[in-house]
Amino acid sequence: MQTRNVFDTFTLPITKSGQSQIVPPPPWIYAIEMIGVKVFFDLNKIIDLIPPPLEPTDGEGFVYIAKIFTISDNRWEMLYEDPEETKYMEAAVALKVKYKDSIYTYFPFMWVDKDLPLIRGWLLGYPKKLAIISMSEYHKLLDNYNGPTEGMKMGGYAVRNGKEIIRMRITLKEKYSSPPIPFGPIVQFRRFPSVQEGTNVYELGQVISSDFRTGDIWRGDGELLLNNSINDELELLKINKIEAGYYFNWSFKQLGTKILAKL
Amino acid sequence: MQTRNVFDTFTLPITKSGQSQIVPPPPWIYAIEMIGVKVFFDLNKIIDLIPPPLEPTDGEGFVYIAKIFTISDNRWEMLYEDPEETKYMEAAVALKVKYKDSIYTYFPFMWVDKDLPLIRGWLLGYPKKLAIISMSEYHKLLDNYNGPTEGMKMGGYAVRNGKEIIRMRITLKEKYSSPPIPFGPIVQFRRFPSVQEGTNVYELGQVISSDFRTGDIWRGDGELLLNNSINDELELLKINKIEAGYYFNWSFKQLGTKILAKL
Amino acid sequence: MQTRNVFDTFTLPITKSGQSQIVPPPPWIYAIEMIGVKVFFDLNKIIDLIPPPLEPTDGEGFVYIAKIFTISDNRWEMLYEDPEETKYMEAAVALKVKYKDSIYTYFPFMWVDKDLPLIRGWLLGYPKKLAIISMSEYHKLLDNYNGPTEGMKMGGYAVRNGKEIIRMRITLKEKYSSPPIPFGPIVQFRRFPSVQEGTNVYELGQVISSDFRTGDIWRGDGELLLNNSINDELELLKINKIEAGYYFNWSFKQLGTKILAKL
Amino acid sequence: MQTRNVFDTFTLPITKSGQSQIVPPPPWIYAIEMIGVKVFFDLNKIIDLIPPPLEPTDGEGFVYIAKIFTISDNRWEMLYEDPEETKYMEAAVALKVKYKDSIYTYFPFMWVDKDLPLIRGWLLGYPKKLAIISMSEYHKLLDNYNGPTEGMKMGGYAVRNGKEIIRMRITLKEKYSSPPIPFGPIVQFRRFPSVQEGTNVYELGQVISSDFRTGDIWRGDGELLLNNSINDELELLKINKIEAGYYFNWSFKQLGTKILAKL
Repeated sequence: MQTRNVFDTFTLPITKSGQSQIVPPPPWIYAIEMIGVKVFFDLNKIIDLIPPPLEPTDGEGFVYIAKIFTISDNRWEMLYEDPEETKYMEAAVALKVKYKDSIYTYFPFMWVDKDLPLIRGWLLGYPKKLAIISMSEYHKLLDNYNGPTEGMKMGGYAVRNGKEIIRMRITLKEKYSSPPIPFGPIVQFRRFPSVQEGTNVYELGQVISSDFRTGDIWRGDGELLLNNSINDELELLKINKIEAGYYFNWSFKQLGTKILAKL
Repeated sequence: MQTRNVFDTFTLPITKSGQSQIVPPPPWIYAIEMIGVKVFFDLNKIIDLIPPPLEPTDGEGFVYIAKIFTISDNRWEMLYEDPEETKYMEAAVALKVKYKDSIYTYFPFMWVDKDLPLIRGWLLGYPKKLAIISMSEYHKLLDNYNGPTEGMKMGGYAVRNGKEIIRMRITLKEKYSSPPIPFGPIVQFRRFPSVQEGTNVYELGQVISSDFRTGDIWRGDGELLLNNSINDELELLKINKIEAGYYFNWSFKQLGTKILAKL
Repeated sequence: MQTRNVFDTFTLPITKSGQSQIVPPPPWIYAIEMIGVKVFFDLNKIIDLIPPPLEPTDGEGFVYIAKIFTISDNRWEMLYEDPEETKYMEAAVALKVKYKDSIYTYFPFMWVDKDLPLIRGWLLGYPKKLAIISMSEYHKLLDNYNGPTEGMKMGGYAVRNGKEIIRMRITLKEKYSSPPIPFGPIVQFRRFPSVQEGTNVYELGQVISSDFRTGDIWRGDGELLLNNSINDELELLKINKIEAGYYFNWSFKQLGTKILAKL
Repeated sequence: MQTRNVFDTFTLPITKSGQSQIVPPPPWIYAIEMIGVKVFFDLNKIIDLIPPPLEPTDGEGFVYIAKIFTISDNRWEMLYEDPEETKYMEAAVALKVKYKDSIYTYFPFMWVDKDLPLIRGWLLGYPKKLAIISMSEYHKLLDNYNGPTEGMKMGGYAVRNGKEIIRMRITLKEKYSSPPIPFGPIVQFRRFPSVQEGTNVYELGQVISSDFRTGDIWRGDGELLLNNSINDELELLKINKIEAGYYFNWSFKQLGTKILAKL
């Protein structure tokens, strides 16, 4: 048999064609409908969620529930060939952190409900787990709904392994000029440990994004409950103050990571 | 203890307040995003899916996948207090049938993915089972999507107990004047059997609906695969001809049933 | 066309062969692995969960999580043709109640995770909803597990629509002579309301069972948390005292219902 | 603020305590109930599923459905604190392959239904995706079942994104002396790609296992259907011959990986 070339599939499963891989290569395109609550957390607690060399700032954070539509590698046909691969639910906690005197956004927790975004996220350092996630959705013909208005309420939750780890509710008040996140560029830890042998990856990367667009941004009141579970230390997220609730749509691309430090 | 009055809860679970019942009383409001395929089935087969006194006509049918938003008993707060109770996925087969020389719509099969619509459907005679159901969804910020256009494709499927019972794909061509269903008023069998003892319910009812509204109706090509399973006789739905694919949004209320016959 | 006979399918969907019906007729056979907690509830609260003509007794109750294996109509081939139709998870609350001076068992709440047991339960009056339900399972080769022993712990939970409605944990102490339930024969309300028209079924039935067998019954400590949700009034189940935790296996048949009263 | 040490969590999410990480470090303990079918695949097709430097042999393979019980890092309390984290369903395809003139076992495809085994698998190179997986289970009190016997049938399936990718059925004939797998030590590709920047991991590792034990091994007839899907190239697994069906229980530990080659 003549020598065969290495299969250069981006992710597992590795096949000659690459058609079976769970995550196709970038660009990764996202369009997001999101509700969230801007909060300030107790600094004495969140310090244990912020791995060095990242450092805390003032405790500012944002917790969201989102429905995300996504396309990888310009495979637009997935929208009708495999619709579940083009949408997922996501919940996450964002913290304002500092690295070398600059402000960044860091996600200590993130949950999704599909495998493609789970693995894709890990490649950029997002610490994704699976959860059951739900949020309000409005259909235009349901009672003549005409889009968000003052006083409209939305809610959502995330459940992992029997625990309601996040529950939120927002009440819209007014359109607002800017989205509540990001606080600065996103930094995450790519972490693929050696298991006895094997390359040990532990590196701080900055996510490279582009093509940000936002729809209307609504701001109002927010209510937020976070519950600890045996494998999710949400007890470290003690809420000192709730600033506001938000509802907005946005889209962007994620293209890769820029390595800031190896640990 | 003084005599207590009978609890008059509409459905189980029965409690004094009625707050635990799975299905609150009508009105039941629906707003629906639907893809479907208009087909003609083999008359020799579908005869076994059409219980007397209903009779077949020309084999015309419609198979759809839908995302449905719903409110029962005007409990609009469920949209944010319990969002999963206000939306569900549904797949179904509609047949044009005859009863006493008039044309009706009859659903021999229907699947949903939540319990509230399952039980609510049974109260009107819809033969609902659970399935995993998915269809294409488009977000307005995903590649500047601006609503349906000529050439846009959508797809969907239903899986029950490991079998892909329905798979469809449509390609939009043009706006159309009227929705593909209903063929006539909806008739279904309310069926709650005696189990040794107990009232034996087997009655033909006509569903009472109101407040129909439709958004744009798109028509185009349709592709449809139906697969038999051990507990779903889709082998009785032999497709002779596919007429068209459809995409449309509509809304209506269901208020009850008018009994046509007791069997 | 010659006259066709009425299709005599037991449940929906109605077809000529009956092969598509969701629930085949009895006998319904059950084999159950169960953990549960025997408790006494506050009488002032549970009164609102006990529909007349049933009356409360001393507040004794039992809350369980169970894995149930089941066959309907002797279709044993379903065990390998459609394994998910032969097993399901169930959680429930049992109360000791009185009717005409005799003691009965009444289930004000019951949750399962499949459609067949949901509808089958409703035919006998069990007020089933869907929930996500989990409990401990032990494999004999996992650390040389040799069956239940003193000190072994088991746990479980039920989640409905984002709320952890039940969480329990038991610690085994000793084998015991008798199962914690039933308190007496089971009574439930068959309830299929008229919707404007249609037969209105509201009748108290006693479940007819047979062929009870039990495996070893273990008794020990129990811990139990019940949480209210917007559609599950567990706030009416205020725990005054926890008596014991139980683990046991049993099997029986359910054959039908004997009507005690029409309401 | 004094300098904080790097958090040395094994996997994401990274926290000071490590209590939130999705996969704790080894040892990883497994106890498995498995049905499977030994087959021979068409060599001309599976060549595209076997990445160099692995090479095909005679096309021998094994396809299984399994229920797996697992403990990581000796956290036995997870069995009752979080039961869903201690069990999962798995389906996989094993191929007999050659590397440097020795025989190995290689899994080109593997599916599970939980996140912990998904990520844990990736750390060793198992190409896991999520799927819905089911198999027959027998309860000892269900019709006096006394363990496997001649003539007993079992079945199972795996569904991913609406496609029934695997369906199998086995009929037991006789006890057998040895399990159908492994063919030799397990080799897999650890693959964590660079995304623009970041360490690019692509290395062939041999899984280090220990403490193998098996229960009774049953052998008999096997039936197997494999279906292609848009993201799972099962069309490359053309079955030339079915040799036998198997049912058995076994347990072992996985401790890490030994790197054989960097690609």
